[in-house]
Amino acid sequence: MIEVSENKCHGGTQGVYRHRSRACSCDMTFGLFMPDPDFGEHVPVLWYLSGLTCTHENAMIKAGAQRWAAEHGIALVFPDTSPRGESVPDDDSHDLGQGAGFYLNATEAPWSSHFHMWDYVAHELNNLVCGEFPIDGDRQSIMGHSMGGHGALTLAMGLEGRFRSVSAFAPICNPTASEWGRRQLRAYLGDDESLWRKHDATFLMLEKGFDGPVLIDTGTEDQFFDRLGTDKFLEAVARRKQQVSFRLQAGYDHSYFFVSTFMEEHFDFHSEALGRQ
Amino acid sequence: MIEVSENKCHGGTQGVYRHRSRACSCDMTFGLFMPDPDFGEHVPVLWYLSGLTCTHENAMIKAGAQRWAAEHGIALVFPDTSPRGESVPDDDSHDLGQGAGFYLNATEAPWSSHFHMWDYVAHELNNLVCGEFPIDGDRQSIMGHSMGGHGALTLAMGLEGRFRSVSAFAPICNPTASEWGRRQLRAYLGDDESLWRKHDATFLMLEKGFDGPVLIDTGTEDQFFDRLGTDKFLEAVARRKQQVSFRLQAGYDHSYFFVSTFMEEHFDFHSEALGRQ
Repeated sequence: MIEVSENKCHGGTQGVYRHRSRACSCDMTFGLFMPDPDFGEHVPVLWYLSGLTCTHENAMIKAGAQRWAAEHGIALVFPDTSPRGESVPDDDSHDLGQGAGFYLNATEAPWSSHFHMWDYVAHELNNLVCGEFPIDGDRQSIMGHSMGGHGALTLAMGLEGRFRSVSAFAPICNPTASEWGRRQLRAYLGDDESLWRKHDATFLMLEKGFDGPVLIDTGTEDQFFDRLGTDKFLEAVARRKQQVSFRLQAGYDHSYFFVSTFMEEHFDFHSEALGRQ
Repeated sequence: MIEVSENKCHGGTQGVYRHRSRACSCDMTFGLFMPDPDFGEHVPVLWYLSGLTCTHENAMIKAGAQRWAAEHGIALVFPDTSPRGESVPDDDSHDLGQGAGFYLNATEAPWSSHFHMWDYVAHELNNLVCGEFPIDGDRQSIMGHSMGGHGALTLAMGLEGRFRSVSAFAPICNPTASEWGRRQLRAYLGDDESLWRKHDATFLMLEKGFDGPVLIDTGTEDQFFDRLGTDKFLEAVARRKQQVSFRLQAGYDHSYFFVSTFMEEHFDFHSEALGRQ
């Protein structure tokens, strides 16, 4: 692992690091904010998964999250959204290939050679940051935006016991029925739609739910609202009787202006779950 | 109108009053909390609609609402849930007849002689309290519990422009499909199910929504969860893109212990909508 950059930020350190990834068979870059060391030897960690087209950098710059991570004494990881590089397959559209990993392990050519973002985030990067930095791996929570909200919800439900809380901004939450999902799931996982379900938050909610609190914000003016599948996900939440706080925020769209507005409340939410009042 | 009782409470006055109701063709009793007169000549008003079996008195005693009405300077009305008296029809079950008016105007015998709770709450009692007390009728919001949550949601969406905000605790929100609804709607409104829809919050949400913020809390351990229709209502909320905050509160049931827990937050919500921060 090499250091790309480190900057002091809100009393802590915003770092960017690069490492060779076995899961993705390429070099991967991630952002990590560590709060002021005065918080103690090992701090809890919150994952932020980004949306389509983003690298590790977008949220690091635009989400305004370090302010609250610093206040609560929480480490914050910003993974990339896909494998990268000239040798990595890509597609001309913005929502398949590089920048659009969908947080799953592809099984179909040409994607299966590199696109293993589930294993990367869930295992490889987790082991790396918990091993290299003073992070308490027993206290983890996860959040995400759009495709990253999909990732946060599916990882939280799929990795039972890993995360204490999960939140999302405008998550894609029923991709097996959406323009943002069906094409990608078919490309990455093949034609057997039954294999898609473990990457669909609505199915996961109906089948197992999440053993902890869930917070979701979506804007009423979200320009991609019809691609998110919010209606079916909410129906599943009610059927599951999932502990949840769901808000449709009047006038907000899909942008980071929306995400940054509610970031403080998402940190309050995770901070309580992480015992970090 | 006669005064049944007046008690000083949190610096204001908790009154109980009785009057002859034209809408219900019987004497009706209601509770009204008025905050400290120091708040000014005319204060905004919040309606609290109660659930099955309740009179005007249950919430007045158990919801812990006056504390917050006093702090925010808001009048609080507690209507009864049905017409009352020996001459008023009734049923042996707890969820039809007296104590179970469902906030509608019955058209079917024997109920049509007295059961006009929609007109009573929406018009007659509104005119009475706004005329007899220093209340600003242009600043109204509404809340309710269970059947009263149904009433709050249907009145808020049915009386466009009347209420600035609406909230509910464990509302019945899809009664046309529920054990708490189908029997009563048939008894009160007859067999034509198309006439039931204007008293079903899920249909109203799909058709028109609410022009303001909505807050709903329901407990994950609500013993009547399956009668509430929460899943279909949430699906409608998402389809409507309704400004909403919906929370499933872990471990809470259907009782006033649940209602009172979140009353402060409901007042914060309405207070903001009523310009009363």
